[in-house]
Amino acid sequence: MEKTNVLIIGGGASGLQAAITAKSNYPEKSVVVVRQEEKVLVPCGIPYIFGSLHSSDKNILPDKMLTDVGVEIKIAEVTDVDIENKTCNLSNGQKIYFEKLVFATGSIPTVPKWLKGGSLENVFIIPKNKIYLDEMQAKLKPLKKVVTIGAGFIGVEMSDEMNKAGWDVTLVEVEPSILNKAFDKEFGDKAEELLKSRGVKVITNNGVKEIVGKDGKVSKVVLSSGQELEADAVILSVGYVPNTKLAEKSGIELNKYGFIKTCEYMRVENCSKDIFAVGDCAEKRDFLTRKLNGTMLASTACAEARVAGMSLYELSPCKSFSGTIAIYDTAIGDTALGTAGVIESKATEESFSVVVGSFTGMDKHPGALEGMHPQTVKLIVAADCGMIIGGEVYGGSSVGELTNTIGFLIQSHTNIKTLLTAQIGTHPLLTGSPAAYPLIKAAEIVAKKLKR
Amino acid sequence: MEKTNVLIIGGGASGLQAAITAKSNYPEKSVVVVRQEEKVLVPCGIPYIFGSLHSSDKNILPDKMLTDVGVEIKIAEVTDVDIENKTCNLSNGQKIYFEKLVFATGSIPTVPKWLKGGSLENVFIIPKNKIYLDEMQAKLKPLKKVVTIGAGFIGVEMSDEMNKAGWDVTLVEVEPSILNKAFDKEFGDKAEELLKSRGVKVITNNGVKEIVGKDGKVSKVVLSSGQELEADAVILSVGYVPNTKLAEKSGIELNKYGFIKTCEYMRVENCSKDIFAVGDCAEKRDFLTRKLNGTMLASTACAEARVAGMSLYELSPCKSFSGTIAIYDTAIGDTALGTAGVIESKATEESFSVVVGSFTGMDKHPGALEGMHPQTVKLIVAADCGMIIGGEVYGGSSVGELTNTIGFLIQSHTNIKTLLTAQIGTHPLLTGSPAAYPLIKAAEIVAKKLKR
Repeated sequence: MEKTNVLIIGGGASGLQAAITAKSNYPEKSVVVVRQEEKVLVPCGIPYIFGSLHSSDKNILPDKMLTDVGVEIKIAEVTDVDIENKTCNLSNGQKIYFEKLVFATGSIPTVPKWLKGGSLENVFIIPKNKIYLDEMQAKLKPLKKVVTIGAGFIGVEMSDEMNKAGWDVTLVEVEPSILNKAFDKEFGDKAEELLKSRGVKVITNNGVKEIVGKDGKVSKVVLSSGQELEADAVILSVGYVPNTKLAEKSGIELNKYGFIKTCEYMRVENCSKDIFAVGDCAEKRDFLTRKLNGTMLASTACAEARVAGMSLYELSPCKSFSGTIAIYDTAIGDTALGTAGVIESKATEESFSVVVGSFTGMDKHPGALEGMHPQTVKLIVAADCGMIIGGEVYGGSSVGELTNTIGFLIQSHTNIKTLLTAQIGTHPLLTGSPAAYPLIKAAEIVAKKLKR
Repeated sequence: MEKTNVLIIGGGASGLQAAITAKSNYPEKSVVVVRQEEKVLVPCGIPYIFGSLHSSDKNILPDKMLTDVGVEIKIAEVTDVDIENKTCNLSNGQKIYFEKLVFATGSIPTVPKWLKGGSLENVFIIPKNKIYLDEMQAKLKPLKKVVTIGAGFIGVEMSDEMNKAGWDVTLVEVEPSILNKAFDKEFGDKAEELLKSRGVKVITNNGVKEIVGKDGKVSKVVLSSGQELEADAVILSVGYVPNTKLAEKSGIELNKYGFIKTCEYMRVENCSKDIFAVGDCAEKRDFLTRKLNGTMLASTACAEARVAGMSLYELSPCKSFSGTIAIYDTAIGDTALGTAGVIESKATEESFSVVVGSFTGMDKHPGALEGMHPQTVKLIVAADCGMIIGGEVYGGSSVGELTNTIGFLIQSHTNIKTLLTAQIGTHPLLTGSPAAYPLIKAAEIVAKKLKR
């Protein structure tokens, strides 16, 4: 029987990151990644396969990142895990003994059971599966009218990229605004405006009743309002569920949403101390509300995987994961939107008393510089103690890193007053002006409200 | 005699910011800014007047920022300050009584006294003065060969912009690498390579001996090595000195470099508690070495001005300025470089034991995406305690905000270990990949070295 010190099940972002971190922290240990896919896709790059990248071949996570540091890759399915005896059976007949095991089995797209017509030809989901997506891309090629259902990040980015590539796209969302889990309505409305200006038809406040077929193929989508949309294809982007069947079969405890229960060191709860879970399959808690949370992000997955990789043989109280902050961004044309921590509507709904401040400036200065984009920063701050608990950003291509700045401010429990005297760097071509830097100006607005 | 609660001398970035903050924090107080210039230039935008912006008219700090909040502007020179009686005399014959006074008199470019030929026609400096710069631009128009002396930020940006606009530019620097105060040599060398690839001739390790004239006009520049450069014009960008003659005349104490001595609340030392100084004219200390520091930045000036503006009538221990971190960036074409805190060579020179980590990744992911730029992050960390004390960044247009992230990490005394488990946000079009985000990877390299 083969033996390894560390066995990681799953080769997506979290599996890859767990393997690299394990090998980096424990170079003398052997690390094996078992995964089903020959080639692994960059998860967040998937929508871009359908537009900017043209092909999934340009969206591959390089195996070199693993093999260069001495991680072994096995292409197979893990069919059974024996937690007690620390062995796994693989689909290729192999059996592996492990010292430490990491579940990094990811997530799979949801197809709502109530949805009539969900199994018609040309109804697609977005799994992180190259073979499926390549076939889907080929099938979509001759088709014209596409209806995307669900305006989260995947739905929005798929719609925008497919519109850009020439498809006639309608995006349908049941909630009053798009991207509503990540952004307050004023930001969602801006994103909606942008999509529309680029040619995507957007319908909000309207659910899907039924997908209607003709000769077994999609022909139209009927909305709750009764409106009918002609369609050659439907893309379902209504969410993902954790892929935890193998874990469940192995006797591992799942939470009520189907995630593997884990502790702050990413060890599986009520289990041997040698079993870990990371990424989309692992339980998440909101850093603020402390409630279970279903937000799945490759970046969060990688943070969890780093914690697990460092904690395999040795725990440290300063290396733990204390709740998901959910930092993420999207881009529509030359505009980008970013979010970190809680949004205002969510905070209020959860009974936090918050004060917010929003400021719109420019992302270059003076404004006459070519390529200048307006930039808005909104900060969400706890009213009683001044702690920054969330931020939303609208602007140009620097939004990604600016959102990360806000993410770090949240993670270090920064008080809003700290920003009032903070030193920043500014440059005409790279940032807003020092006297009107939106992050600082938004902080000043919040501080003034708190003073009253 | 006219009276005002707050009088600010100088209308540049720091004067403007001090006035806005004062009015925002003490709306019932009257605030007057006295300045000499009809129109104030955006200081960091000055090099772009000669290229991208074409004209200084597109690089004006809008008075609206002041007048909108009720700040009064007076165009005049302050000729005398009577600290004891709290009055100022203006060049227009007016006398003003003030309760609080802020010096924001800025800085002026240096012309080295030893430089032979410094007063020839077509030898230019770069003052923050619209009238001078407009005349200079007109004079430069028919000329061809320009030699820039001094490769700090202004010298580099002037050279790049003038080269872009069609002048034949040679940049001369006496030190072995350009931008050497802000960047370690490996970053300076990259900047040099870039400038050269764009057509700027760069000569390092070579000082200027003499500027030679013909008929009173510049004709060539002679270097220490004996090399001679034909030149129609010379631009001196060898530094700035604080503009503190008025303060000195008023009996205010200057430090040995000519800056107004100030405390952490930006109050003038050994003086009435009602007198403040901010920006280029005010004393600066390095946040780490605690030594006097001469770095002049509009962004730092604005941070100081915010502290002063908040502290005019009321001090708070959490609103003070504890030393300049010097966060700044520059851009050369589609490449940008940023720096925050101390660089490695400076830390070593000052006897700090440091560990550094450097990682090069991409600023988009996958790398096949259009416009992807390699991104390098170098972190400088105190060896004994793990505190992040500096960072340097090379990359695309997101460098400005990424450098600010590092700036915040330094300001909040972040331990390098914090980054190992930090959550970040990533997006294909906006940032590096979650598994190879250069800031985190650089931190991992440092942490590994510290562990040994």
